[in-house]
Amino acid sequence: MNRKSSGITAGNPIRCKAAIARKAGEPLVIEEVIVAPPKLREVRIKIICTSLCHSDVTFWKMEHPPAIYPRIFGHEAVGVVESVGEGVHELVEGDTVIPIFLPDCGECTDCLSEKSNLCTKLPFRLSPWMNREDTSRFTNMNGETLYHFLSVSSFSEYTVVDIAQLTKIDPSIPPNRACLLSCGISTGVGAAFKTAKVEAGSTIAIFGLGAVGLAVAEGARLRGAKRIIGVDVNQDKFELGKKFGMTDFVNSRNCGNKTISQIIIEMTGGGADYCFECVGLSSLVHEAYASSRKGWGKTVVVGLDKLDATLTFNSFEVLHSGKSLMGSYFGGLKPKSDIHILEKRYLDNELQLDKFVTHEVDFMDINKAFDLLLEGKSLRCVI
Amino acid sequence: MNRKSSGITAGNPIRCKAAIARKAGEPLVIEEVIVAPPKLREVRIKIICTSLCHSDVTFWKMEHPPAIYPRIFGHEAVGVVESVGEGVHELVEGDTVIPIFLPDCGECTDCLSEKSNLCTKLPFRLSPWMNREDTSRFTNMNGETLYHFLSVSSFSEYTVVDIAQLTKIDPSIPPNRACLLSCGISTGVGAAFKTAKVEAGSTIAIFGLGAVGLAVAEGARLRGAKRIIGVDVNQDKFELGKKFGMTDFVNSRNCGNKTISQIIIEMTGGGADYCFECVGLSSLVHEAYASSRKGWGKTVVVGLDKLDATLTFNSFEVLHSGKSLMGSYFGGLKPKSDIHILEKRYLDNELQLDKFVTHEVDFMDINKAFDLLLEGKSLRCVI
Repeated sequence: MNRKSSGITAGNPIRCKAAIARKAGEPLVIEEVIVAPPKLREVRIKIICTSLCHSDVTFWKMEHPPAIYPRIFGHEAVGVVESVGEGVHELVEGDTVIPIFLPDCGECTDCLSEKSNLCTKLPFRLSPWMNREDTSRFTNMNGETLYHFLSVSSFSEYTVVDIAQLTKIDPSIPPNRACLLSCGISTGVGAAFKTAKVEAGSTIAIFGLGAVGLAVAEGARLRGAKRIIGVDVNQDKFELGKKFGMTDFVNSRNCGNKTISQIIIEMTGGGADYCFECVGLSSLVHEAYASSRKGWGKTVVVGLDKLDATLTFNSFEVLHSGKSLMGSYFGGLKPKSDIHILEKRYLDNELQLDKFVTHEVDFMDINKAFDLLLEGKSLRCVI
Repeated sequence: MNRKSSGITAGNPIRCKAAIARKAGEPLVIEEVIVAPPKLREVRIKIICTSLCHSDVTFWKMEHPPAIYPRIFGHEAVGVVESVGEGVHELVEGDTVIPIFLPDCGECTDCLSEKSNLCTKLPFRLSPWMNREDTSRFTNMNGETLYHFLSVSSFSEYTVVDIAQLTKIDPSIPPNRACLLSCGISTGVGAAFKTAKVEAGSTIAIFGLGAVGLAVAEGARLRGAKRIIGVDVNQDKFELGKKFGMTDFVNSRNCGNKTISQIIIEMTGGGADYCFECVGLSSLVHEAYASSRKGWGKTVVVGLDKLDATLTFNSFEVLHSGKSLMGSYFGGLKPKSDIHILEKRYLDNELQLDKFVTHEVDFMDINKAFDLLLEGKSLRCVI
């Protein structure tokens, strides 16, 4: 992304470039925008790097509500604090931060509990506005309001983010790696690490080997999983997956007259200890559940399907299989505290963030990042 | 139940009385039966006490397969070993045992694992036969074969049970209490104790206050739950539930235009930490799930619905609620080892088995036990 010096901008609107989505599925347009100063408990940051996550693409394709246009997408990023709004004491100008779509107010029962990452005071919502009030900080040169995405909107040189959605990080981490901690990789690693708490020596199966699925493999590898089975339609993912500890591969287009779960049950002599659905297909959640070991198998839903999609299970199977089902949102990680665990793992050369970055493009070429992801060529394209 | 001395019966068929179900939903008929000697890894026991469990009633009402007649129901019992078959070294004549519907071979991966109670070598099956071979040990005086139930069939003065389904217990426990450990009470207590691992100070909600639901309360009380909310259609269950630590009650027929989950969420300021469905209604599982606390709520399916019933969840709700769903079969307890934990708790005056026994009837009056349970008057009727 292009960088320009901020100058003495605090308290004033900033004019800069942003990539605007004007219509579902159409290329983003780079335009001049005005970014208003941060309000109460808000922070304006200069984006250093951003990367494209599947959720951006999912919402960008959406034609009906909660879709809304014109909008500034992007939520996986790293930035530097340009100025802070009233009541912000946690950060100062120049701090390196990552924005996270999931708020962490630090005060409510959930944020104070080790068990939850779902803030009650500022609950996550699919809104086109800032977090604490239904207003935007973006306008274009014609005075038109531009909508936010996940209260982050990182496809802009500057953006305004709530303090509850910013985590200060070690500035020594290269920005083109740090941004990955902001969403997808943390989601996958956390799903294995925190939600499932994968045990050393266990067997796991991952359905869908995009960046999040491979990050699940990475998380399981870090936890000492013995066998990591990847499932994907693309055979090339096996070689790629090996970098993240994958030991076996099932090509779901090549199962003959068997189901994926039949194959996994045969391979493992009963099923995987942990199964992760990372595609966002409800039907695949059931395959994952069926692939999990009776007696103790855990199935973790990581992928986002359509908002009205349903999961159906046989009641007796749930009762007498000893299996459990859980969701993992942002990998179950607490945005303010758990990110530092991953940060440390990266700095200790354990967590392999580098291997997830397959492409880098200039901000002006942001649409290339979309093309690469849609073509299945990129894991993470840093912008 | 009537007792008669066994005499020197080992190796020979025993003639005794049993209560036969000849047709779905019709009163049992006390008849003379012949109980064959135990075969390989089987044990013939003299039933001292049996009690009526809801599963007996569920299957007794069933008109279509897996229903089969004539059949000897009953699976919650305590007995004394009369004789052992070939290869049985774990028990000797005179040992006090409880039969358990769930096998525990002690050798397979599951039985050796702390995490599973679902034996692989002798998997639980809804079969009308013995466990290791598809044969019956019961005939009547006309040579007619009588079918087993859950490979236990305790509604007989003598029965034959596989060694994998027998747990030796302390003979000092009164038989009219010991039999309760054989199924329902263990199932409920175990669901709270072992499956959910209820934490001290937590809030739980129980849907359905039959013996199993009240046993969940008892298990949660023993684990130090602070608040135990019972949900039932019968207001009288509140007074009863207080004996087992229940602190609150929701009459599900008296919710006005609110759902049960709305009421529980209001009562608890967000939902219960643990929810248990003990009725066996798939629709209620969803209410239980909705009543559980976002961020960490666990929903445990304990009740048995129709075998083809389905559970449906919104995919996005599963993904982003932080909730989990699990089943609890026999309370997640390992039949051979965990029963001794409950046994000790009873002997230490902690587990209140006594309060579950509301009625006692003579074996000849076994149909009264059915009437009492169907009328909702009894928790456990010892026969």
